[in-house]
Amino acid sequence: MNSKVYDVIIIGSGPAGMTAAIYARRLNYSVLVIESGAPGGMMVNTEVIANYPGFSEISGVDLSLAMYDQMMKLGAIHEAMEVTNINKLDDYFEVLGSRVYYGKTVIIATGTKNRSLGITGESKYFYRGISWCAICDGPLYKGRDVAVIGGGNSALSSVITLSKFVRKVYLIHRRDTFRGDPILVEHIKKLDNVEIVYNSNVIEFKGMPLEQIIVRDNNGLEKEFKVSCVFEAIGRLPNSEIIDCKKDQEGFIIVNDEFETNINGIFACGDVVKKGLRQIATAVNDGAIAAMSINKYIK
Amino acid sequence: MNSKVYDVIIIGSGPAGMTAAIYARRLNYSVLVIESGAPGGMMVNTEVIANYPGFSEISGVDLSLAMYDQMMKLGAIHEAMEVTNINKLDDYFEVLGSRVYYGKTVIIATGTKNRSLGITGESKYFYRGISWCAICDGPLYKGRDVAVIGGGNSALSSVITLSKFVRKVYLIHRRDTFRGDPILVEHIKKLDNVEIVYNSNVIEFKGMPLEQIIVRDNNGLEKEFKVSCVFEAIGRLPNSEIIDCKKDQEGFIIVNDEFETNINGIFACGDVVKKGLRQIATAVNDGAIAAMSINKYIK
Repeated sequence: MNSKVYDVIIIGSGPAGMTAAIYARRLNYSVLVIESGAPGGMMVNTEVIANYPGFSEISGVDLSLAMYDQMMKLGAIHEAMEVTNINKLDDYFEVLGSRVYYGKTVIIATGTKNRSLGITGESKYFYRGISWCAICDGPLYKGRDVAVIGGGNSALSSVITLSKFVRKVYLIHRRDTFRGDPILVEHIKKLDNVEIVYNSNVIEFKGMPLEQIIVRDNNGLEKEFKVSCVFEAIGRLPNSEIIDCKKDQEGFIIVNDEFETNINGIFACGDVVKKGLRQIATAVNDGAIAAMSINKYIK
Repeated sequence: MNSKVYDVIIIGSGPAGMTAAIYARRLNYSVLVIESGAPGGMMVNTEVIANYPGFSEISGVDLSLAMYDQMMKLGAIHEAMEVTNINKLDDYFEVLGSRVYYGKTVIIATGTKNRSLGITGESKYFYRGISWCAICDGPLYKGRDVAVIGGGNSALSSVITLSKFVRKVYLIHRRDTFRGDPILVEHIKKLDNVEIVYNSNVIEFKGMPLEQIIVRDNNGLEKEFKVSCVFEAIGRLPNSEIIDCKKDQEGFIIVNDEFETNINGIFACGDVVKKGLRQIATAVNDGAIAAMSINKYIK
């Protein structure tokens, strides 16, 4: 058992967690970053990032690696593990998964996970006809027809990505206007192989592997679409189960201006916290402030 | 006279202003950015930036140009002008300087200016032996001796930050008590490599690059200190004179979570607003949120 007590254990290596690591290392604190997947968080699954200041266009993988390199050069330790639980011991914390690590402070930067429709029979199609990642799974559907569900930037970007691979993309949206950026909406409307289906909801998945979906519009009219995959982009839920702190109704962690949770010594930052705008540009803010708060807490 | 009314006029093209421009352009708003100096704001004067996530090391000039290119490619208009005044007309604003521009909304992103000692010969050491940012420049003086001037939290935090990198920190303070938090003062007094020089003022800088400073105490006694850098932490002043909105005692603009000032249609973001941590990573956050608030205001 490794009994080293780190100054800071950061859980999650998306932009918030990696920024916290960069700032904490620059303050000379010992930093362990624990991540269950690839470094980068949601960035890794984003084909092109064009709204992070400093990069006109960069692939999500490249930006993830750039931040990863930066924190590793500064001396952060990165371990792969799924964290299941955090316990407060005397004056430090125990972070549990397949191994145990100890930290004087913990920063939760675990981000969000995909929300699903929650309709009957949906779950048996998860990863077998239902996907949440156009970049990852789009190439598997070359020359076939697919659907995207949603109306935000995530749905719009998925449509643009998929339109490059597949024969046809149906964008199914429950409203008649989009939450996403107008620049993306205009882009989509110019694409030949995209059809927007407004004011409609998917109510059923059929076939195994998936062959078709039943869509119902706001007037109750039902229509069948033959698709091989449905990409759900209908919002996200926080990965906040590992910690029993103050949260909002949906589970987003409530923090103050210093990114402190209601548990002394535990901080949270990035998409997992209750906030107005979830972007890389806002995640790096949170990570920097959380690390500076650690500085005040430890001294 | 150009009578075009822009959707957004952004005053200042540091990281906050340029990020606001990037986000506002992606929302398809017409954007005019007005800057009196070089694009980049304080970044331009920073030799190496190592704490902005995504770039392990980048010169301030290069990062400034990268953000500038990004906003220009997206279609922002950039004009050089010193803004002197902003007036509210019917349902838009008039932005005055040597010319006049009109905007439905205005974002103040004018940043801060360094407060300096104001002694003879000081200005030729600016950014070449005189720094205002321990977090940014501290790591450059690893193993060397430096001085901090000031008695507030900013000076005390700078000393703590620097003590982790440098061989010795002299804290030069004109009084015998500190304005800053007692907890920070106590912390500093325990640090082996910090020497507090009370009741003293720096009266001269010598050498190029900086080699030593002359310090005079309240009894008129002069003493020489060999240091490679002096961190002036005697305060920063907001560039907020152009707008008559709600501010704190020092002139920092007070905004809500949406970065709205108390004047409907006028927003402020970045270092010019009252906030806890002034970094590029926090400025981009503010700019992104301010642009999204414009989106809510104009709709």
